[in-house]
Amino acid sequence: MGTTLIVNPGSSSRKYALYNDGKPVLELRFEDTKSGFEMCSQFSGSKQTCGAVTQEDFFNSFKRVVSEVEKTISEDKILSLDNIVVRVVSPGTYFQKHAIIDAEYIQKLKQKESSAPLHLPAILREISNIKSAYPDVNFYAASDSAFHQNMPPKARTYTILKSDAELYDIYRFGYHGLSVSSVVRKIHPLIGMEPDRMIVCHIGSGTSVTAVKQGKSVETTMGFSPTSGLPMSSRAGDIDGSALVELMRAKNLKTMDAGVYLNTNGGLAALSGESDIRVLLDKKSQNDPGATLALEVFAYHLQRAIAGQTVALGGLDVLVLTATASVRSPELRSLVLNGLKHLGIEISPDRNEVLLGKDGVISLRNSPVKVVVMRTDEMGEMALVPNQVKRAG
Amino acid sequence: MGTTLIVNPGSSSRKYALYNDGKPVLELRFEDTKSGFEMCSQFSGSKQTCGAVTQEDFFNSFKRVVSEVEKTISEDKILSLDNIVVRVVSPGTYFQKHAIIDAEYIQKLKQKESSAPLHLPAILREISNIKSAYPDVNFYAASDSAFHQNMPPKARTYTILKSDAELYDIYRFGYHGLSVSSVVRKIHPLIGMEPDRMIVCHIGSGTSVTAVKQGKSVETTMGFSPTSGLPMSSRAGDIDGSALVELMRAKNLKTMDAGVYLNTNGGLAALSGESDIRVLLDKKSQNDPGATLALEVFAYHLQRAIAGQTVALGGLDVLVLTATASVRSPELRSLVLNGLKHLGIEISPDRNEVLLGKDGVISLRNSPVKVVVMRTDEMGEMALVPNQVKRAG
Repeated sequence: MGTTLIVNPGSSSRKYALYNDGKPVLELRFEDTKSGFEMCSQFSGSKQTCGAVTQEDFFNSFKRVVSEVEKTISEDKILSLDNIVVRVVSPGTYFQKHAIIDAEYIQKLKQKESSAPLHLPAILREISNIKSAYPDVNFYAASDSAFHQNMPPKARTYTILKSDAELYDIYRFGYHGLSVSSVVRKIHPLIGMEPDRMIVCHIGSGTSVTAVKQGKSVETTMGFSPTSGLPMSSRAGDIDGSALVELMRAKNLKTMDAGVYLNTNGGLAALSGESDIRVLLDKKSQNDPGATLALEVFAYHLQRAIAGQTVALGGLDVLVLTATASVRSPELRSLVLNGLKHLGIEISPDRNEVLLGKDGVISLRNSPVKVVVMRTDEMGEMALVPNQVKRAG
Repeated sequence: MGTTLIVNPGSSSRKYALYNDGKPVLELRFEDTKSGFEMCSQFSGSKQTCGAVTQEDFFNSFKRVVSEVEKTISEDKILSLDNIVVRVVSPGTYFQKHAIIDAEYIQKLKQKESSAPLHLPAILREISNIKSAYPDVNFYAASDSAFHQNMPPKARTYTILKSDAELYDIYRFGYHGLSVSSVVRKIHPLIGMEPDRMIVCHIGSGTSVTAVKQGKSVETTMGFSPTSGLPMSSRAGDIDGSALVELMRAKNLKTMDAGVYLNTNGGLAALSGESDIRVLLDKKSQNDPGATLALEVFAYHLQRAIAGQTVALGGLDVLVLTATASVRSPELRSLVLNGLKHLGIEISPDRNEVLLGKDGVISLRNSPVKVVVMRTDEMGEMALVPNQVKRAG
């Protein structure tokens, strides 16, 4: 498999990793925290170290990455960098597969900039930096919607004019595909079975619920954009189109402003002024009404989505909770999963309480649905992309 | 209860009725059919008669109504017209209760015109006609969202900025309240029980799914406007806000155009060019791919909504299908209800097949959820409004 550099510009952080033969040998994470900019690094077999960085370092993170990669390669005596993989989150049928990044790909991505003005400029900048630093290394896009590319037409279709959907490529693409795909890959080693009917809840700064039938995505809550579906930290999720029109009319918002509004003025932050689930749980324990309502709404929409996804599966065997908030908060898990007994979901309060930061099963022994908590492995999934692209084409 | 004139300007027809002591003595319906304008009338105890009317008669239907009402009152020797009730479908917390129509009410409704430009002008015109013809008769508004006025905050709230929701009154109001309320009133006489946990699917030219807990609405699919929630004949239902923004950008739609688009270029018609479910079922039986996809999407969204509403109820005892399409089409019922066995919904193909245009139970004897088909009675519900308003204060 050679050596692969993974580039993952996320919605709240930028992550990089160097994989050699499927294993990470170096991980770097840049984060814009409330107290300033931070970089954390970890070499395989050693502890993670974190430290403050300047704003310039943060925005030019790739320069720093190149120097760390060069150092690692020379120290580790790995001969050369073979592949670079960058995560691409973009609407569009063209972007719904993993691909080689060539001139055509970059041009197509530029054409999409105005459809996703908040996310694509950063990805395009990252791609351009990588091209300059490593012009001759094989360069791949890991599509975050590829995993959903074969959703059935009834799940992919919006009920807008068919001719408009075709002309402007407006379909339900879905996202968090790399995360869900990593869950599908790792579920058997963890629980010793590959479930026929599985639902995966990704609860991070973005939130989604995906229905997976025999390993394939058949439905997911995010649609055209990663702003849609469930309420998230600061993303609104789905709202009545007419309510959006009313908001635009009342606030005199321009079309593009409305897109920004949905991305930045929605979700948990909109209801409570706070987007961090840990802080909200703290405030809720002190009976803060805003925090309580925000968490209620958040959990309620997740529950409704879980129930809704059982339709695409005709029932449910395994429910997986993944991503940061799922893995670190028993309290959030309990908010989301209690009250779903009629769907066969029964968690053990004890098992739930003790499982922290690790993979494991938290359902009762005789719960009809097995409930699994799993760390997501988007980066590991991305490291597999070069081989997948080679095999496909 | 006296004599009450009911005025129901619907989305595809205008209906009028005269009730005396809770029973209809005269019904009039004006419809804009594909073959022209039509008026049907029915006196209690006699058969319905229909005939073509001119466009002018159609648009001035109220004049015709007044003359029929006067004739009926003089012939039937009913002393006088006591009340008039008009159905009001409007967003706004103010409109979420039944009310006396006075100058303040009319002024408030006029202020809402730009929020619902497709529906409110017709209602305001009807109100003005009634006021001119009967200036001294008690005049009431039957709110189509009143039944949902006590939905819990988690169901009523959009995840947009709390301050904007408050300032511009953007909440999930819900509609089809008169229809669902009539189902709640009539379920006991039909099946001999008042279910704790009931879901009501209204499938007419508008479509909604409401969760009813101990007789009260706790969740419904329509939100701020009756365009939202599920796909309908020509209404889009919910679509990703960012997809709407993309459509507006690509088509260069103005804000208000976007509202019209969602109302008129969505739903079944958008996918197949046809909004009549009977025609679509015919085409599907001839393997027409557009009709097949449109019906699949329609049934799939209904199924997902039914599953989602079980969360608000913690399970399900009785599922009711009401309104025209539910009552007249066993085939549609079977499309919607098959595949929901994991929710305890099991229909009897035989019972379903034979029930046409009547109320009845179509579930298997041992189905955990009882499935009931019921005609809606919005008009009968509206006839109760004067007493409800008087009792309330």
